[in-house]
Amino acid sequence: MSPTATLLLSCPDQKGLVAKLANFIYSNGGNIIQADQHTDFSAGLFLTRIEWQLEGFNLPREVIHPALGAIANPLGAHWEVHFSDRRPRIAIWVSKQDHCLLDLLWRHQAGELDAEIPVMISNHADLAPIAQQFGIDFHPLPITPDTKLAQEAKQLEILQQYQIDLVVLAKYMQVLSSDFVQKFPQVINIHHSFLPAFAGANPYQRAYDRGVKIIGATAHYATPDLDEGPIIEQDVIRVSHRDNVKDLIRKGKDLERIVLARAVRLHLQHRVLVYGNRTVVFA
Amino acid sequence: MSPTATLLLSCPDQKGLVAKLANFIYSNGGNIIQADQHTDFSAGLFLTRIEWQLEGFNLPREVIHPALGAIANPLGAHWEVHFSDRRPRIAIWVSKQDHCLLDLLWRHQAGELDAEIPVMISNHADLAPIAQQFGIDFHPLPITPDTKLAQEAKQLEILQQYQIDLVVLAKYMQVLSSDFVQKFPQVINIHHSFLPAFAGANPYQRAYDRGVKIIGATAHYATPDLDEGPIIEQDVIRVSHRDNVKDLIRKGKDLERIVLARAVRLHLQHRVLVYGNRTVVFA
Amino acid sequence: MSPTATLLLSCPDQKGLVAKLANFIYSNGGNIIQADQHTDFSAGLFLTRIEWQLEGFNLPREVIHPALGAIANPLGAHWEVHFSDRRPRIAIWVSKQDHCLLDLLWRHQAGELDAEIPVMISNHADLAPIAQQFGIDFHPLPITPDTKLAQEAKQLEILQQYQIDLVVLAKYMQVLSSDFVQKFPQVINIHHSFLPAFAGANPYQRAYDRGVKIIGATAHYATPDLDEGPIIEQDVIRVSHRDNVKDLIRKGKDLERIVLARAVRLHLQHRVLVYGNRTVVFA
Amino acid sequence: MSPTATLLLSCPDQKGLVAKLANFIYSNGGNIIQADQHTDFSAGLFLTRIEWQLEGFNLPREVIHPALGAIANPLGAHWEVHFSDRRPRIAIWVSKQDHCLLDLLWRHQAGELDAEIPVMISNHADLAPIAQQFGIDFHPLPITPDTKLAQEAKQLEILQQYQIDLVVLAKYMQVLSSDFVQKFPQVINIHHSFLPAFAGANPYQRAYDRGVKIIGATAHYATPDLDEGPIIEQDVIRVSHRDNVKDLIRKGKDLERIVLARAVRLHLQHRVLVYGNRTVVFA
Repeated sequence: MSPTATLLLSCPDQKGLVAKLANFIYSNGGNIIQADQHTDFSAGLFLTRIEWQLEGFNLPREVIHPALGAIANPLGAHWEVHFSDRRPRIAIWVSKQDHCLLDLLWRHQAGELDAEIPVMISNHADLAPIAQQFGIDFHPLPITPDTKLAQEAKQLEILQQYQIDLVVLAKYMQVLSSDFVQKFPQVINIHHSFLPAFAGANPYQRAYDRGVKIIGATAHYATPDLDEGPIIEQDVIRVSHRDNVKDLIRKGKDLERIVLARAVRLHLQHRVLVYGNRTVVFA
Repeated sequence: MSPTATLLLSCPDQKGLVAKLANFIYSNGGNIIQADQHTDFSAGLFLTRIEWQLEGFNLPREVIHPALGAIANPLGAHWEVHFSDRRPRIAIWVSKQDHCLLDLLWRHQAGELDAEIPVMISNHADLAPIAQQFGIDFHPLPITPDTKLAQEAKQLEILQQYQIDLVVLAKYMQVLSSDFVQKFPQVINIHHSFLPAFAGANPYQRAYDRGVKIIGATAHYATPDLDEGPIIEQDVIRVSHRDNVKDLIRKGKDLERIVLARAVRLHLQHRVLVYGNRTVVFA
Repeated sequence: MSPTATLLLSCPDQKGLVAKLANFIYSNGGNIIQADQHTDFSAGLFLTRIEWQLEGFNLPREVIHPALGAIANPLGAHWEVHFSDRRPRIAIWVSKQDHCLLDLLWRHQAGELDAEIPVMISNHADLAPIAQQFGIDFHPLPITPDTKLAQEAKQLEILQQYQIDLVVLAKYMQVLSSDFVQKFPQVINIHHSFLPAFAGANPYQRAYDRGVKIIGATAHYATPDLDEGPIIEQDVIRVSHRDNVKDLIRKGKDLERIVLARAVRLHLQHRVLVYGNRTVVFA
Repeated sequence: MSPTATLLLSCPDQKGLVAKLANFIYSNGGNIIQADQHTDFSAGLFLTRIEWQLEGFNLPREVIHPALGAIANPLGAHWEVHFSDRRPRIAIWVSKQDHCLLDLLWRHQAGELDAEIPVMISNHADLAPIAQQFGIDFHPLPITPDTKLAQEAKQLEILQQYQIDLVVLAKYMQVLSSDFVQKFPQVINIHHSFLPAFAGANPYQRAYDRGVKIIGATAHYATPDLDEGPIIEQDVIRVSHRDNVKDLIRKGKDLERIVLARAVRLHLQHRVLVYGNRTVVFA
């Protein structure tokens, strides 16, 4: 398929927004292949995702950005535009567990994730062999309370060095500092519970103790407030009295890897808009 | 909320369709509150649903139709426009089972179904008391192989007399003739299986015999080919070796009433477009 | 089917428990039609449900209880035995919402709930007509902070008067006092969230504010700690950014009535054992 | 945990079966850790799975088999007994797709599948590198209509040579002959549809053409009748008009690997009994 441009835009709602944006694309010869809108009436906010083919589009790429700005900025819009032949660059962060990592790497190989994965960061050395096997640079950065801030500075350096667009926390069992998240806000985390239930540590043990009949997993953007970031995707599975904590962990792994993979894919296809602490997902 | 107009339109795909329709609404002072598009690239077909507020819209209602025709007809489009303050009129058809009927009537009372339900038709008299309780006219029309065609003529008369827009087969255990469906194509049926599995009679017994681990229900538009019409909604539930046929029937009832209710609601909100044997559901 | 006896028993785990109980039934001519066991190894607890046919069972009913006691009491067991031809008696408590009530009454009529429903209690008069329609006594007992304790005394009187075995809180929007729950512990409540998420008031608004992608409902036994009782059943449904709070409430109603009905049915079939704050559900 | 013995037994229903089996284990000093029974009343069949600890069990292993036979054979029972420290041996058969294979191998490494996987068979050479990476012997056996029977003879030889207990068809895109399945009946297959819907070839294309709203996958034992064998496990996922055939295939892969893995795990834990064309799964 020929490359496409994707506009993500949100702005205070007013009449004529769809017409304005559609006209811009049509009058420049573009063919819209997918367009989604949502209006949050309580917030008075209009949100849209428009994807159009660049073949036959009259504006050169370097002009698209300023031209869109001329429309969007007077609307007080938050907006971004992405070109499908510019593949986002991902850093995967892990600790010791490999299930989410392997799942992402397998999907990447299978062509499900349209991105580059040049680098992994970990607070442990355990998964270095997997990085090596897949030809990915591996940076072990052990974390102690004393070294956390210094290591975060190194992490930021690595992200810059590899020109990373998105950090995926694939069971990275460390909390990021507020400072880090503010400096690098494009971080997707997988939490091993159906948030907001069992936020924090040991969710499977606590789910077992509470005697729930369903467990879940939640993929969300990381924010300075732990486990409070905008939710991208969730899924659940039934459990019974027959399942002990170990069974919950095993069943949960399947949820975690699928929910995280879906969230990463949605993000990479620029289908997720954030406003306040919420997401609009144009799936 | 002020009344809205909803356009459903499908036509061969070409550039500028979104712009054309959005401009029409904007230039006449309309405020779009929801817009959905879909392009089926393999069929070369563009489908859209646009809903806008009539308050502040400059065109009087009697002009909207011809004005839209002037845009849509040159595109070779199938299209319809609906006004939210014109409530569709439903005829519910039943046989002896009451679960889908009662569910629809309860939802209607609860304000979930924006429609009038002036009449029920049945091939049995069993559910007449429910009709009476809810103040709905009840027409018993017993069917035998010999009387089927004559009774269908009477059914069509009743639909005309009550100005019915939609027939809902809420466990009406008779097959409609091709002739009937061609004369009155707006018919939603609930089939008590996960179609195309177990099309035809006795799906629960056959599901039991096959030993499936999940059963389902399917709401679809009726067509001359039995159980082959465009699917609107499906849902499923797990079963186990512990469930005998009676259990499957009991579990299936919950599916049937929820799936049928969802399909009817989607239809009444003009969220379903049909093309070929498929639906696009802008849920 | 001929009547059956159902034994629910839990005791410290030890060898030979299955043999002991099976021998008792077999040696007295009983035919086991369903037997379930579960051992919670971390708690060192054995739990079982055994159902056998009374036809051909040599012990008269008045002897079954002491005979089982002679086996169970030396084991330090909690146990109870139920006869299927002694139908449990339910009091349904409501406030103003009718969806769970109507669903239970419809299932009762359809033969899904093997129980008597002689009485309803409500803190409002709104649903009295439904009680009348179904031939159920209706006791309106308005609650204010000042009258709560006095009214609870009346509620207990009514439960005694009608020989009630089980109270079903079908959207009864009042908190029961600890004292009440201790005096009458057989109470099933439906909470309109996926507990422990959104325990307390206004769960749908809070679910909306948190931006979750899935909502749920939870049926549990009432305990002195609000929303903390043993969970019997939960279920969930997907929501999206398109769903506002009103949509969540509408979708949630379908969950609430199905989850509550499942829990009540499981309880009536004596399939639920409670230990600590957990349930074993032999579904 | 100390090793356990697991008895799977089915026989015509009669009184005292549970007592007989429980007594045998108790009187020999065994401690039952899990016991499940099911009676299919329409078939007049009793089925059970009993697992007990071998520590403290007085019978030596070589005596357990004849001792059980002395009880089971007079009952006309089908039965088998397994010891948990004797790990079943699996041959995985593949064609070109790797998703089910990699999933099984990852679970095996993670300790989820209690088995040996010494050998892979394929009609293509594509996945040989994965076999090598995991240290598994790989036998490429290309199939043409002319060579099919000869190759099946070789396949049987390999199964014998590696003392294989279970063949897992992890997207092996060849039909096994009736003769093969009769000679080696322990074969689990994953079918990429919600059987019996879309049995046969190209299920995703046909699901797309039918316009279903949910797709599924089915793990079943292979039988001489293609896609008609006893179903072990099924699961489903929602699709929409937005999903083209490629999307269905992608979503289906996640189903296939999870459903197949669950079925294999259930089989390896001896939780599946087959009778007629049905399974009882004591999950």
